[in-house]
Amino acid sequence: MFNSEMYQLGSKRSVIRELFEFGKQISKKYGPENVFDFSIGNPSVPTPDEVKEDLIKLLTEKDPMALHGYTSAQGDPNVRKAVAYNLNQRYKTNFSEKNLYMTVGAAASLCICFRSIISKEADEIVTFAPFFTEYRVFVESNGGKLVVVPPKLPDFQIDVEKLEKYITPKTAAILINSPNNPSGVIYSEESIKSLSTLLNKKQKEYGHEIYLISDEPYREICYGDKKTPFVTKYYNNSLVCYSYSKSLSLPGERIGYVLIPSEMSQFDQMYAAICGAGRSLGYICAPTLFQFLLINNAGKTSNLEVYKENRDLLYNGLTKLGFECVYPDGAFYLFMKTKEPDAYKFCENAKKYNLLLVPADDFGCPGYVRIAYCVKGDMIKRSMESFKKLADEYK
Amino acid sequence: MFNSEMYQLGSKRSVIRELFEFGKQISKKYGPENVFDFSIGNPSVPTPDEVKEDLIKLLTEKDPMALHGYTSAQGDPNVRKAVAYNLNQRYKTNFSEKNLYMTVGAAASLCICFRSIISKEADEIVTFAPFFTEYRVFVESNGGKLVVVPPKLPDFQIDVEKLEKYITPKTAAILINSPNNPSGVIYSEESIKSLSTLLNKKQKEYGHEIYLISDEPYREICYGDKKTPFVTKYYNNSLVCYSYSKSLSLPGERIGYVLIPSEMSQFDQMYAAICGAGRSLGYICAPTLFQFLLINNAGKTSNLEVYKENRDLLYNGLTKLGFECVYPDGAFYLFMKTKEPDAYKFCENAKKYNLLLVPADDFGCPGYVRIAYCVKGDMIKRSMESFKKLADEYK
Repeated sequence: MFNSEMYQLGSKRSVIRELFEFGKQISKKYGPENVFDFSIGNPSVPTPDEVKEDLIKLLTEKDPMALHGYTSAQGDPNVRKAVAYNLNQRYKTNFSEKNLYMTVGAAASLCICFRSIISKEADEIVTFAPFFTEYRVFVESNGGKLVVVPPKLPDFQIDVEKLEKYITPKTAAILINSPNNPSGVIYSEESIKSLSTLLNKKQKEYGHEIYLISDEPYREICYGDKKTPFVTKYYNNSLVCYSYSKSLSLPGERIGYVLIPSEMSQFDQMYAAICGAGRSLGYICAPTLFQFLLINNAGKTSNLEVYKENRDLLYNGLTKLGFECVYPDGAFYLFMKTKEPDAYKFCENAKKYNLLLVPADDFGCPGYVRIAYCVKGDMIKRSMESFKKLADEYK
Repeated sequence: MFNSEMYQLGSKRSVIRELFEFGKQISKKYGPENVFDFSIGNPSVPTPDEVKEDLIKLLTEKDPMALHGYTSAQGDPNVRKAVAYNLNQRYKTNFSEKNLYMTVGAAASLCICFRSIISKEADEIVTFAPFFTEYRVFVESNGGKLVVVPPKLPDFQIDVEKLEKYITPKTAAILINSPNNPSGVIYSEESIKSLSTLLNKKQKEYGHEIYLISDEPYREICYGDKKTPFVTKYYNNSLVCYSYSKSLSLPGERIGYVLIPSEMSQFDQMYAAICGAGRSLGYICAPTLFQFLLINNAGKTSNLEVYKENRDLLYNGLTKLGFECVYPDGAFYLFMKTKEPDAYKFCENAKKYNLLLVPADDFGCPGYVRIAYCVKGDMIKRSMESFKKLADEYK
């Protein structure tokens, strides 16, 4: 009498989780220093000391009734003001607390957006391969259909021409993720501009809104002079989904937001629909201690430089060994072409050398693997011998 | 192009929220000491000092990567062990970490249960009036239909005979809430036993499970020698939804669980369905700092005695004035019969004396009001003059 779809969702372990468990097993056998687990996208740098200190200060000084009490569903107004102020400082935007809805992390932000715009069973959300595997779960569980545009090789940017063929009158939104998990690519300003032009054209053609949902938990993790374009500056009907999981290394605390720009068509109704979706999903409010933390810490980050060092170590090491890799400008993933067409087989081979890599088939990109380099730099160095053995096997 | 149902849900303010805002307005006019706001069920006693101290200890001593990192979706195993151990101590049960799934509060627990058992659009969840207003939202948003059994007067216990007429082959679950919001009634052991007998009979008759979902955020708030029966001891196919919002005065932090007893039919599949439902609702994991807090604090409570003092003050005061009230054995709500059939009109009248009471129509019980006495005892004393004026009006 239980729901069989939910049973399927709950009983099928993800490839990533399987690998992670496998890694723990072989660590016992070979010693953790000889296992190279690149499977999981968990931040490898701690939250800044200021975060710890501010949490203790809040617990010590703030009235516990206010600190741990319900806030309004959209979040405490002063928290939202602080987040808006910080965004305005960084992006020369003009947001206020009215543009923000605080959430229990980016997954919640995405579910809320999907639920608020999907009206009919057949409404489609279009995204680009490679894409984060849970997108399919979140879109389908909110009544929509995920449509996937094949990857644009070799740069993995947005293929606007190809996209046009996938947009139909049923398209409710385009979903992007930049910096991208799993490719590490940042969609360029040019890509976002072309996307915006196309969407405006299609909106006119169909006579209804097509939203641009931008999933941005990796926004602050971009290297060198690369920047992640702020989508609301290019397209009015944008919804930004953010989480502090990666920037502040707080993935377990579940704190993020949806940003709804005032330029959005029918802004008031859309904001109300976001509130309704949050209500119907049982979120009540975002955890309050971590909401209040943002008043003083909205723009801070962990020491993200570590990821750049890792990127360089890994990218240089692997290309020197003859592997073909997408150059990652952001996030903490390297996307590598496999030396044989079947990525599962390639990853099985890699396991022989205690290398745990994720086949990218579930990300919509067969023939590639995702290598999560949110690990100790030292491990990357030690792993190179194993990668060399793997490369030699295919010579 | 947004979802109009979500817009409706988000734009329609609840009566309770309206009253709360009204209270803030008139507080400015008359002074807060002259406004008697009984509208909101927010705990009025702070979380225990030990909770504050333990949170600071966790922040100071535990590795921040483990403290704030993802746990598995069902929650940290040591946290679940601690919660199970505490339940076993208190109720002589035999739970382990395998019976628990940690959640982002009771609303999440309920949504997860509904989603995991509702398979077809027409599946019905049966509850008893009066009931917490959001039940309808959570059931419908997970594809089910809420069926309401009229209240049993005058004691507001479970009316098993009446219930039988409302159970059909479409019934997926019976939903109870004890101690009850809004009536303050605790369903007696006798009620639970009769309910269990009926459900076992109906399960046999229909050849499928009928779950008993027990929503218990007020479990620890019961007065004198009254106890809330632990449903898993009476009925195998029980699912317990719990939250620490009221017991530890942490409503904003969103921490709770679903308890799935091993005696449940097809336990493994049901547990998987619970995991799948949590995944599809975008919950990821319960906030980790507050998960780890439970290792040392699972069985503690705020100073709940305050609510008993308030109960006595209010019940005695109002009955002395001639109001007819349900005697509340638990929670922090008093259910009072209105002096005219239209509870909305009665509450409008009460506003003249700065008394903010919630008409119980939305709880499925016209002709009654809910009086939330999670307030300062002093306010209750001062409010009696206003209640007297209200009573005099109907003499």
